[in-house]
Formats: sequence, structure tokens, C-alpha cells
Amino acid sequence: MRDRLLAAEKVQAIDWRDDALYLLDQRALPFTETWLPYDSAAGVAEAIRTMVVRGAQAIGISAAYGLVLAARTRLAAGDDWRAALEADFALLARARPTAVNASWALNRLRERLQRLKETEDPLAVLEAEAAAIHLSDREANLTMAQLGTELIRKHQGNLQTVLTHGNAGALATGGVGTALGVIRAAYLEGMIERVYVDETRPWLQGSRLTAWELASDGVPVSLNVDGAAAHLMRTKGITWVIVGADRITANGDVASKIGTYQLAVAAMHHGVRFMVVAPSSSIDMSMPSGDDILLEERQGRELLELGGQRLTTTVEVVNPVFDVTPADLIDAIVTEKGIVERPDTAKLAQLMSRKHLH
Amino acid sequence: MRDRLLAAEKVQAIDWRDDALYLLDQRALPFTETWLPYDSAAGVAEAIRTMVVRGAQAIGISAAYGLVLAARTRLAAGDDWRAALEADFALLARARPTAVNASWALNRLRERLQRLKETEDPLAVLEAEAAAIHLSDREANLTMAQLGTELIRKHQGNLQTVLTHGNAGALATGGVGTALGVIRAAYLEGMIERVYVDETRPWLQGSRLTAWELASDGVPVSLNVDGAAAHLMRTKGITWVIVGADRITANGDVASKIGTYQLAVAAMHHGVRFMVVAPSSSIDMSMPSGDDILLEERQGRELLELGGQRLTTTVEVVNPVFDVTPADLIDAIVTEKGIVERPDTAKLAQLMSRKHLH
Repeated sequence: MRDRLLAAEKVQAIDWRDDALYLLDQRALPFTETWLPYDSAAGVAEAIRTMVVRGAQAIGISAAYGLVLAARTRLAAGDDWRAALEADFALLARARPTAVNASWALNRLRERLQRLKETEDPLAVLEAEAAAIHLSDREANLTMAQLGTELIRKHQGNLQTVLTHGNAGALATGGVGTALGVIRAAYLEGMIERVYVDETRPWLQGSRLTAWELASDGVPVSLNVDGAAAHLMRTKGITWVIVGADRITANGDVASKIGTYQLAVAAMHHGVRFMVVAPSSSIDMSMPSGDDILLEERQGRELLELGGQRLTTTVEVVNPVFDVTPADLIDAIVTEKGIVERPDTAKLAQLMSRKHLH
Repeated sequence: MRDRLLAAEKVQAIDWRDDALYLLDQRALPFTETWLPYDSAAGVAEAIRTMVVRGAQAIGISAAYGLVLAARTRLAAGDDWRAALEADFALLARARPTAVNASWALNRLRERLQRLKETEDPLAVLEAEAAAIHLSDREANLTMAQLGTELIRKHQGNLQTVLTHGNAGALATGGVGTALGVIRAAYLEGMIERVYVDETRPWLQGSRLTAWELASDGVPVSLNVDGAAAHLMRTKGITWVIVGADRITANGDVASKIGTYQLAVAAMHHGVRFMVVAPSSSIDMSMPSGDDILLEERQGRELLELGGQRLTTTVEVVNPVFDVTPADLIDAIVTEKGIVERPDTAKLAQLMSRKHLH
């Protein structure tokens, strides 16, 4: 499965080469594929904020490389580079507040710096750690794809009709994706009949990114408006909703793309199983529940600009871009450390106490 | 209330004057206000099909005037005008299949023709009947606005936070609207704190039409993506969902704009009351349940065209533009004949047996 997934891999969002970070500009997809180069932490933070790169894990990996770029600048500037680097940590961590992965990746780099030996080259050490974060996300994707497929097989043997929301794919991670990694693997195993993709307003991650990713892999895809999901559950025999996560709290509540909570409510109403796929780096054991998560709100113009024209009414817009799905609406959380069915605080604590597989 | 509603009236979608039908082109709103003239049934049918005019009641009124235009042509052409007119009845009735109002209005004209006396001028009779349909829809709107407001007052005295979907407003009817008529009246009564408006993909009836209508009346409006509705119910204290209908079957199932069913599921989950506002002309006693309703699907390009660019992927689109909300998710159906709480077949039959108020 691992080899077949890697052989089928077509899309990547992040490239580190020649001491610079290259990001595929996801704002322009699927119309144009443009790679933008970054050589500073400020540039990477801006790329995260403006959604050149998006998706929890891709943000984490990009932030890690951004910190490497920052360290190079700070080291060249003078001797108090460690103190100066704190501003870069803060800048990158707060570029987008909801996903925990940037903080998680930056904390890994900070801890590695704290263990730095006199004989080590700080820049080489940080670069190696960022590359390790990137590689381990790729590996986690492959493991989750395998585990998620096994979970589907365990529950139902027949062909699955899946619905997904947002983009938890290759473009959102360092590898084959979280939710889309499971869908890709299950498709390769002959277990997927069709995938319904919510277009995912306002940013259209579904129609621009997920449909593009899955169609280029040959997966049978149907695109629908977000409001049609419950109607499709009622009429199209959907068996699973599979989505990613931006932050999972200690009790199993899941912050994810706006609309995920509404899907979970609809899935519960229709007896459709609900799977969240996310690496353990998305689990934030410091937050007891989803009530503690800061949910990013973005500008109203994401809703108001239609084909280059701006609605002229003086209408207030409320544009929360994430919501919280309570644990009790979730059938399973699939991580690279294992699967948690019917998540709760005790089960997540047990999961997180396991040794990293990668 | 009636006088205050009429005094506040700003928007109309349909104008019959100088023996021609003028329709406000709703495809171009809110950017430009263009009135298009029609002098033939074929033109009116095309205007309905392409959504120059939309909304169940506005379609019914337009179809009625379209039949008047057809009769003028058929009468001028020769003596077998009644037989020839059947093609126009069919053309207008099938322009859009889901709403029952076009068939209802056309049936009223056909029945009037069957009662035609030798001494009567057929054209004058049909024109008077179409005008009566138009006028009675305006009156029905005012009655429903009053009844819906009383229903809200009966259940909760405090300020309401309402969520609506699609456009069941002045632009969808001959008057102040169905759902938006109730919202307008309740706002004039000081009972509305804020109205959340789903943008309503793919056609954006919410952001283009409903937000425009309500904001121009001074109602505090917040626009949101459709996927945010459940999150807003959870976090913003929404007390009522108020929507229109395109067809209500004998058991109280409601066909309405795609996304309405998902809203009803979310409302049930959150204990938010769910009100459907529609004139009795939307009730189709010949259909036992919502399973019998033909739900229109429209072209995929409504989802795929983004700012003039077309998504280049070879992705299939499923674009149902209506869905069915089962009666058991509906707290009340408000018609001009009265209110049906917790609708079922017996209660709707009793409602329909009442004499028309108008």
C-alpha cells in the first residue's frame, strides 16, 4: 500500500531546495501552477496568512522552514541570535491561530535548539530538524492512510460512497494527505465507488484543490455545494464522511474547516460514519475542550467579491473559517499512532502516551 | 401592520403595463437594476428557465402573464386559438419543474377559460385573472407576515435572532415576500435583533438578493457561508430559521432551495424553531409526500465558473437546486389561510378545506 501510494503521488505543495522554501501558490489553483520562493520568516508568515500555503500540516512544515530562514538571518546579523529569533518564532506561530501545527513544529525546533551542543552548527541542526518534521509528516500520512483503510474495511466490506469537505490532501500536508490519504488508499484497494466533494465556501478548497487532487488520481469525484450534503446523504447512499483537522483538544473535540460541524450533525442524523484523520501533531493536550480554541475569522470580502465585482450593499459579514465538532459526533479519529473510536479524554491520553511510530 | 409593511415596500420584481410584462433581471442584482420587457410566452418561459425571474410565487405570477401574452398571439392568429394555447400552457408550466406555483396559476387561467361566456372578451378575462393572481399573492404575503409575527410572539417574547436561506422575499413574490415578509413585519414590531443570511450557493440568492432586500429595509443583517449555519446556531443564540417553499406536499413535506433540509436537521439538533412561510398556492394536495417531487438539477457551470474562469478539471458536478425537508423537522407552516403547527396530512387537509381569505 505504502509503495502504491508513493508511486501514485502527483501533487506536492512544499519544496525546500537551494536553502530556500518554495511554495505552490494555492490561491491560483487550479488555474495556474506557480511556485513562489521565500527566503525570510516574514515572507513565510505572510504566505501562511494570505493562504499561499494552507492546511494544518503544510502550515506547520512551512513554519519550520521559515524558522530556518530566520535563523540564517539572525546568525549572520550578530551574537544575540537566540534572543532575536524569539520574534521570528512569534511571527510564524501567530500567522494563523486555529491550527496547532505551526506551534507544534516551532516548539520542536525550540526544544532542539535547547539541546544544541557547542560543537553543532545551529543552522544545520535546525535545517535537519525541519526536514525531519517534513519527512515524518509524509510518513504519518502513509500510516494513517493504511489505518483508515483498515477501519473502513472493519466496519463495512462493500463499496464506499464518501463525502469530504475542505482540503485535507497533499496540498495541506507534506505527503499524500490525511483525509485524502485515506481516500486515496481506499481507492487503490478498490473500496471507493465515488467521492462527493463539498465545494467548501468561501475559499473553495473543495472545488479548487480537493476535486483537482482526486480527479488527477482518477478517483470518481462529484462536486456539490456545501448545502447539498445532507440531501446527498439522504439520497446517494453515503457511508462515510472523512475530513481532516486543524486542532484536536484533549477530549476529542475537533476544530476543522467551517462546515465540518454541520456535516457531523447531518452525518449523525443519517447514521453516516464520521472519520477525522490527523497526525498526533494536531492533538493539543493542553486544551481540555473545543471551547478553548481560538477560531479564526477572516475578512468579509472572501464572501462579497463575486467575479471581481464587490457587492455594494452595506451588509455585515460573519466569516468564521473554522468550527468545532464535539467529540460525541465523531466515530473515529485516525492518527499515525493509532485509531481512537468514539474519542474521549481517557482514550486520547492513552493514545498520546504511546511511543511515536516515526 | 399591513399599512406599515406597504409603506416600507421598496422592491418589486414584476410589472405588467402597456400590455407587456417587465421583469427585474435578478441575475444582475445587486450590481445593476435592469428591467427586461417580454411580449411572448416563449420569452417569459425563457426568462423563468434562465432565472431572470425566480422564486416560486414570482414564477407563478410571471407564467400567468406569459399566458396572457400567448393568448393575444393565438387570438390574433386564428380561430382555433384554444387548442393552440395548450402548447403555451405546457411551455410555461415546464420552464422550471419543482415549484408548483406556475402550474397552479396556469390552472387557474385554464379554469377561468372553461367558464368563459360568449359575451366575454377572452383576452380581457385572462388579463384580469392574471392581475387577480398577482394581487392575491400580494395580499397573501401581508396576511402571512401578520400570522408569522403572531406565531413568533406566541412562542417567545424576547428579541429574536433569525436565520434565513435563499430568497423568499419581495423578489420571489408579488409582494413583501413570504419568509422575508414575516421577518420584515417582525422587525417593524421591534422583535428582531439580527438576521443571519446564508449566502445560498450556487446562485447566491442570499448574498445577492436577500441581504440586499433586508439591508435596504434597515434590518440588521449578517451574511454567512451556508456551511456556517450550524456553528452560528451553536454560538449566536439563533431562535428561528424562517424559509420559503417551492412545493408543499399533502403530508407537509417541503421542497425548497437546496440547503434547506440541512438547515432543518441542524435546527432540530440545536432546538431552534423552524418556520416555513408559503401561500396555499404552494401546497400540492395531489402529491402524497416529498418523495413524489421532481427536484430540478441545473448545470454544473453554476459551481464551476469562478470569476469568469472555468475550473479546468474534468470533475462531475451534482447540482440539485432543491431538496425536501420532511414534515417532522418543521415546527410550523404559515400560509395565508392560517398556521399549521407540526404539519401532517390531516392538518393540511383541514387547512386546505378552509375558504380562501382572498
